[in-house]
Amino acid sequence: MYPKYVDDSHGLHTDLYQINMTQTYWEDDIHNRTAVFELFFRKLPFSSGYAIFAGLEKIIHYLSNFHFSETDIQYLSDDLGYEANFLQYLRELRFTGNIRCMKEGELVFGNEPILRVEAPLGEAQLIETALLNIINYQTLVATKASRIKQVLSDESALEFGSRRAQEMDAAIWGARAAYIAGFDATSNVRAGKLFGIPVSGTHAHALIQAYKDEYIAFHKYASSHKDCVFLVDTYDTLRSGVPNAIRVAKELGDKINFKGIRLDSGDLAYLSKETRKMLDEAGFTETKIVASNDLDEYTIINLKAQGAQIDIWGIGTKLITAYDQPALGAVYKLVSIEDEKGNMVDTIKISANPEKVSTPGLKRVYRIINRENKHSEGDYIAMEDEMPDEEEKLKMFHPVHTFLSKDVTDFKAVDLQEDIFTNGRLVYDSPDMEEIRQYAKNNLCLLWPEYKRALNPEEYPVDLSQKCWENKMRNIEEVKQKVEAMKKQV
Amino acid sequence: MYPKYVDDSHGLHTDLYQINMTQTYWEDDIHNRTAVFELFFRKLPFSSGYAIFAGLEKIIHYLSNFHFSETDIQYLSDDLGYEANFLQYLRELRFTGNIRCMKEGELVFGNEPILRVEAPLGEAQLIETALLNIINYQTLVATKASRIKQVLSDESALEFGSRRAQEMDAAIWGARAAYIAGFDATSNVRAGKLFGIPVSGTHAHALIQAYKDEYIAFHKYASSHKDCVFLVDTYDTLRSGVPNAIRVAKELGDKINFKGIRLDSGDLAYLSKETRKMLDEAGFTETKIVASNDLDEYTIINLKAQGAQIDIWGIGTKLITAYDQPALGAVYKLVSIEDEKGNMVDTIKISANPEKVSTPGLKRVYRIINRENKHSEGDYIAMEDEMPDEEEKLKMFHPVHTFLSKDVTDFKAVDLQEDIFTNGRLVYDSPDMEEIRQYAKNNLCLLWPEYKRALNPEEYPVDLSQKCWENKMRNIEEVKQKVEAMKKQV
Repeated sequence: MYPKYVDDSHGLHTDLYQINMTQTYWEDDIHNRTAVFELFFRKLPFSSGYAIFAGLEKIIHYLSNFHFSETDIQYLSDDLGYEANFLQYLRELRFTGNIRCMKEGELVFGNEPILRVEAPLGEAQLIETALLNIINYQTLVATKASRIKQVLSDESALEFGSRRAQEMDAAIWGARAAYIAGFDATSNVRAGKLFGIPVSGTHAHALIQAYKDEYIAFHKYASSHKDCVFLVDTYDTLRSGVPNAIRVAKELGDKINFKGIRLDSGDLAYLSKETRKMLDEAGFTETKIVASNDLDEYTIINLKAQGAQIDIWGIGTKLITAYDQPALGAVYKLVSIEDEKGNMVDTIKISANPEKVSTPGLKRVYRIINRENKHSEGDYIAMEDEMPDEEEKLKMFHPVHTFLSKDVTDFKAVDLQEDIFTNGRLVYDSPDMEEIRQYAKNNLCLLWPEYKRALNPEEYPVDLSQKCWENKMRNIEEVKQKVEAMKKQV
Repeated sequence: MYPKYVDDSHGLHTDLYQINMTQTYWEDDIHNRTAVFELFFRKLPFSSGYAIFAGLEKIIHYLSNFHFSETDIQYLSDDLGYEANFLQYLRELRFTGNIRCMKEGELVFGNEPILRVEAPLGEAQLIETALLNIINYQTLVATKASRIKQVLSDESALEFGSRRAQEMDAAIWGARAAYIAGFDATSNVRAGKLFGIPVSGTHAHALIQAYKDEYIAFHKYASSHKDCVFLVDTYDTLRSGVPNAIRVAKELGDKINFKGIRLDSGDLAYLSKETRKMLDEAGFTETKIVASNDLDEYTIINLKAQGAQIDIWGIGTKLITAYDQPALGAVYKLVSIEDEKGNMVDTIKISANPEKVSTPGLKRVYRIINRENKHSEGDYIAMEDEMPDEEEKLKMFHPVHTFLSKDVTDFKAVDLQEDIFTNGRLVYDSPDMEEIRQYAKNNLCLLWPEYKRALNPEEYPVDLSQKCWENKMRNIEEVKQKVEAMKKQV
């Protein structure tokens, strides 16, 4: 029966090919050569104008504890047949490299490195799968949550998705990602405890069913909880649920805070308007209406357009699974590697699709902020040794459609990655949840509204420096010549 | 920094409202009354004709270890303000009830109870969220995997989705669910170790980039691995990748097993046919072609229709996230509860949508198997005390469109749920992975092909017994009268 092992570790949370490649590197004695990998996605999810990065906290935890346990080694030996000497290398392996990464809550766009690993080749290779697994999901949910927040005015948003989440980790890390992006609370109590997120929730249909009478059930709930939000759709929202809630609230008066009623089915526009009327007529003008039931940014826009009277939105399935696009396609590409002489040399991955060609070399990514209007002009990817912040004028041009260009002056160039690990040592002091949440909120102020629109936003510029672009073209040319030579040979 | 607590437990992996309701039950002293909840989904995912159940193994683990840790209690007290006496109840709480559940690998359809909890009301309420979280995801992926297997002939299917999975639990439990449904291996090494699933994988583009030369990289890989599958699309599949793979294989001869080449981009139909020709011409007729890149049952059907020469399918994103429908909507409904006199009474949840009305009472679900043709006639939900297996003739009718009916004779009625926990004690002996996988395979033989079609399958009958149907109608009538009475009162 599961778990078969008491020392389950995340060392083995990797694809088999990572171990196979590492074995080749190790046998060829190049496993300790310095390699630089960049992690990025090519396309924004949900046709969104921006994404919100999340996942760093778990990555810090993963890398700080990175190792292969004794039963991991035993499994690799007995079940998979790896050799003892190679396993000895794995047994002693810890993460000893450098990680630079964006802060959680950072705005991130297509084709810009979120995270950079500079580490011995073997280590850098083995951690790929887990880094992608973590960042792909958490960034996806933070982005979806932020999009939902964009269509709200001052209403609250609650994360209610645990039961539909893709297993347990998704439930808790998804709740955290949603909070980073501006959600106000989660229903998941474990997420509340682990991350210090506010939790929210009252009762379900089962309470009414357990008492077999809605009025009695509301009464019982009210006598054990001062703050009451009654779920009113177990039998009939307008004929039974709302009247029973009002009756109990009137009877108990000051003994309870009649904070709200919750609608969980039916036509939320119609029901919320009718409910608002009934509450107001009964004198409960401060009582809020909470609505839930397969909501996302699109249904919310529509309900609001129809004048729905909803004060608090409970969002479940569509958020926690990122329903309309349940995977972010972040990849992890080798951009530079140490050669036999100890020099770092660039590497490239070619594709027939120009958007899929990787950008070689050790790079940094800057946000170019206009000092006058305080808004961002775009992001700018430059080689490690470039200092865009010291330039007077920056030429920004589209890396594929190069005729799209502009000159920017009076700007600030903000390096978007922070040092997280240096020589395997954690050098980053994680901000608390409130700071991360505020950071995400502040970042959104840098963006013009046209990039934040839920539907058909403008494309935010992510440009390469001249030097970076030329370097990429040179690398492409080299590979093309090699393939040509190969063709002649065959 | 996460984790804030060393004794993270799954006790708090629940929605806050479950704890709030339990508090009401506890204060009203009804928390120990026996309650019966059923877990089921209403609609099959992916417009599929069937689903494959998975999730029991993790549920056994969850319930066996169900408790609130000391820091859980502290959090509930200090941060959420619950009272000491109630917390004392939670502190001592263990699962003491009965669980009946389908076996993993079972075929399951809409509106039939997969799992039944019969337990003290408080316990049954608190475990809802985790049970749904686990079953919704694992059953979804097992179903998706089975659908993909249905469109394959004797080709293998490999699960490659870890990097796109929705966090770590999804990666490993999704790999397991896929294996149950007939996949042949996973790339996730941790899933291999934990569950004893075969693992698979060779190398990625990074290997080629690390050596900056495809030919050298293949050579290096081949000198450290006897079995070789070369990934050929780093620079140019047909001009560089396949020729280099063939060159290395010819040079090394018997020193390696040239098992396959892997295509990971481009037009897989065209590339696989060309690659097959090149391999055959070079004498490597036994070398397999592995293909991957956003595949699912629909792309596979299309590629096969175009004569693609693919022997092994690597399936990632679309499977592990159940991309075309990333959530299964299973719910958990109270169907019966002990009253103040100790009698069990039925409960119902009403909805304006007839498909959403719950079916009250303690029930069993049977598969009605025709003894002559060995195929299933449909599933049959009966009250606990009915014995359909002893009937001569069974009238099966559609629970909503009741005119759809048939009489069945010469049948076997198989009770689909097993006893898992009895009075909190685990009484079920989990089969190993191979047994579960074989069980799923055997079950599919019971279904006529029209239910297994990927597109537009027939609807499999899930019927209620006459007694069960009448009981449901009686309960609906009772609630309607109550709502009517309420209306007059208001």
